[in-house]
Amino acid sequence: MNDITPKNTIIERINMESLKKSILEKIKPTEKEREHLTKVADELMYKIDCLTFKVGLVGVKTQLVGSAARGTWISGTHDLDIFITFPDDTSREDLESYGLSVGRQVAKEAEYWDEHYAEHPYVKMRYKGFDVDLVPCYRVSSASSIISAVDRTPFHNEFIKANLNGLEDDVLLLKQFMRGTGVYGSELKTEGFSGYLTELLVINYGSFEKVLEAASNWRPGLLLDILEHGTLKFDDPLVVIDPTDPKRNVAAALSLDKFCTFVDVARSFLGIPDESMFFSSLIPPISDIEIVERLEKKGSSLLAIVFKTPDVVDDIFYPQFAKMENSVVPMLDKNEFTVLKAGKWSGEDSVVMLELMSGTLPNVKMHRGPPVWVRDHAEKFRDKYVDNEDAYSFTIKDGFYVAEIPRKHVSAVELLEKELANCSLGKHISKSVKAGFDILEGKQVLELKEDGFRSFLNGWL
Amino acid sequence: MNDITPKNTIIERINMESLKKSILEKIKPTEKEREHLTKVADELMYKIDCLTFKVGLVGVKTQLVGSAARGTWISGTHDLDIFITFPDDTSREDLESYGLSVGRQVAKEAEYWDEHYAEHPYVKMRYKGFDVDLVPCYRVSSASSIISAVDRTPFHNEFIKANLNGLEDDVLLLKQFMRGTGVYGSELKTEGFSGYLTELLVINYGSFEKVLEAASNWRPGLLLDILEHGTLKFDDPLVVIDPTDPKRNVAAALSLDKFCTFVDVARSFLGIPDESMFFSSLIPPISDIEIVERLEKKGSSLLAIVFKTPDVVDDIFYPQFAKMENSVVPMLDKNEFTVLKAGKWSGEDSVVMLELMSGTLPNVKMHRGPPVWVRDHAEKFRDKYVDNEDAYSFTIKDGFYVAEIPRKHVSAVELLEKELANCSLGKHISKSVKAGFDILEGKQVLELKEDGFRSFLNGWL
Repeated sequence: MNDITPKNTIIERINMESLKKSILEKIKPTEKEREHLTKVADELMYKIDCLTFKVGLVGVKTQLVGSAARGTWISGTHDLDIFITFPDDTSREDLESYGLSVGRQVAKEAEYWDEHYAEHPYVKMRYKGFDVDLVPCYRVSSASSIISAVDRTPFHNEFIKANLNGLEDDVLLLKQFMRGTGVYGSELKTEGFSGYLTELLVINYGSFEKVLEAASNWRPGLLLDILEHGTLKFDDPLVVIDPTDPKRNVAAALSLDKFCTFVDVARSFLGIPDESMFFSSLIPPISDIEIVERLEKKGSSLLAIVFKTPDVVDDIFYPQFAKMENSVVPMLDKNEFTVLKAGKWSGEDSVVMLELMSGTLPNVKMHRGPPVWVRDHAEKFRDKYVDNEDAYSFTIKDGFYVAEIPRKHVSAVELLEKELANCSLGKHISKSVKAGFDILEGKQVLELKEDGFRSFLNGWL
Repeated sequence: MNDITPKNTIIERINMESLKKSILEKIKPTEKEREHLTKVADELMYKIDCLTFKVGLVGVKTQLVGSAARGTWISGTHDLDIFITFPDDTSREDLESYGLSVGRQVAKEAEYWDEHYAEHPYVKMRYKGFDVDLVPCYRVSSASSIISAVDRTPFHNEFIKANLNGLEDDVLLLKQFMRGTGVYGSELKTEGFSGYLTELLVINYGSFEKVLEAASNWRPGLLLDILEHGTLKFDDPLVVIDPTDPKRNVAAALSLDKFCTFVDVARSFLGIPDESMFFSSLIPPISDIEIVERLEKKGSSLLAIVFKTPDVVDDIFYPQFAKMENSVVPMLDKNEFTVLKAGKWSGEDSVVMLELMSGTLPNVKMHRGPPVWVRDHAEKFRDKYVDNEDAYSFTIKDGFYVAEIPRKHVSAVELLEKELANCSLGKHISKSVKAGFDILEGKQVLELKEDGFRSFLNGWL
């Protein structure tokens, strides 16, 4: 009887191996793809070297960094991060002007290009089918003496290349699994796992499956410090001390809910390994009929705040969008509307969805005043309400005065129409909202036809 | 300019004096009334003395106690408390049997009488227009060595008679003021001020007005210890240490809200002295039309739980009635019905009134599960709801699983109909409720026609 478990385990292991193989066949770059990438990257770096040599920029070197350099890129993604590294005694002005000038020269042969601004300006371009970033940075002696944030990247590159030791496939599997389950990406829109973080997790635990096994038992506050050199305390759900910088948490951008989602999907996958989890199936858009049916089945009140998405990058927009939700929901709560849940979606228009216990409240509101024994306040409250014609009644309950008064906002729609612009919304959203917004209620949501929104709503409602 | 205040104060004082005089004319017994009371009391005590002498009860004495004995009774009230005091070495059996037997003998000449049971049995009777209590008790050397609770009364009598010193009129005014404002009476129905407590307050502060002035600034937790001999800590809103027993709080029965009501009315009266506050004007019964109008104006949901009042004394019934309210309201809250306020009235039927934000809730309920990282519980919760056909959706919010599930009770009426009998109701109310009850909703409350209820509702709704 006792050999049943081992047998099952063996079968499971075989299943897991064949599943991983099947996925890798889909996501691992072919030799041809790899050669092409190397060729294009070399070509670009050679061009840059020639340019810097021509203008006499001594000590400037080029370096391929990121997943392309580490062999952890997924087939079909065509990103090249090429860093132009300057000696650390270069002035910031020189670095910016020479860096940009080199970028612009190279970009002449690009299919398309533009300039972007992070800590300093850099060139993004489309070149022979690749999305190329040409990023100038300082070449410093150690990651702890970096001058600008991007200077850290070459050190990450070095650490991963030195420690990954043939675990590249495991990183590919983990990245793809995180993509499929919606937790990949450390930008503020996603608040998930960065590529570097997935690589460190694989190095720390030893394999794709071991990461999932460990994650199944993760609890917020977990500390992973591969080099045991961390010096600071962090409050984040996951703390992974950067091997190249003891003061940095690589997982700082990860939100609690994305952390928990990963814990959740790790358990599910280990319970029943399922290839489909690696490839997020797009939720189909919800139809008008289905929206109406769900609204009727739930019986709650649905509201949508719709405004024009401001023309700013995601990393500026999404924190403001979160701030908006965190301002609107308490405002509704304060006015005694019970918010069951809130959600948001952004395309050309942005939408904050709100599901309320009820969109209307009775006219009467219990207005609790001060305790009777706090004489000054009590007397003022009493004078204001005791013979007030508008008030319904005035009583004492648990030692406090309670005046029943007419409610200021009996409709959530009216409340939002009046007070939304006064909420704390963030600069760009505030401007957009002040320019105009709509509050849709219940079936009026059918007016929002965009497929992207309807897909979101299908998952959310 | 400066003499305006003194002048006003003099005018106020004159007004207050004439107001007090006018009230005393209405509530102070006339000489004739007083003589009649003394005559009837003496007559009864003589009868008792003769009876005890006849049967050879040595050492038994009779004593008039209570407000009649202290000159603090209000004209028109006809209560006589006659205590039959036994030596403290009398056995409890003898005290009870002789006490009752003497009472029964005297009662032969009563217009009406019956037997009551407190700590031991006693006779209540109607005799020549008076409500007479004939209470047997032990005659002990000090209040700290009492054998039964009633043994304390003669000591109260003694202390008040020795210390009231001509302040009887102030006690009359205070009692009548408390009656008029609904805070007089220490029984469990009222949870207000006892007669003895009003007498102690007048002794402590010196006059009727001084009690009100002090009360205007009272805060819960106030300690009055006239003899400065208290030995225990009490948690009550007002603590008045019994001058005859350092371990007893005379104000133990006073609820926080009655304490606060007294603070409130004391301030009002001192602000604008108003004779009508001494005589509670009966609130007229509310009409059908007015109920409907108020319901429409408020927009809230009104419910009434109606059951037959059990046949028990008030001091048994009212604590159970309070327990019922304190059980039903949390049960509604737990099921997410927002109770704006609750109230109760009791006549032949008893009624718990409930005003709700809404009597119905949406079908969907947010059911928050365990945090995702508490693996055991999280996995059980997930298994139960994640692919549950009845559930609407399953998500992670702030680290917790949230399942949207169908609500068990969408109607407060149905919830009460199903669950009321399972609430903690107290023995007699539970029995009555199990025998049958009605839940009335909104305009169905019009079915309740009793004047007493309609008066209550007029003040409450």
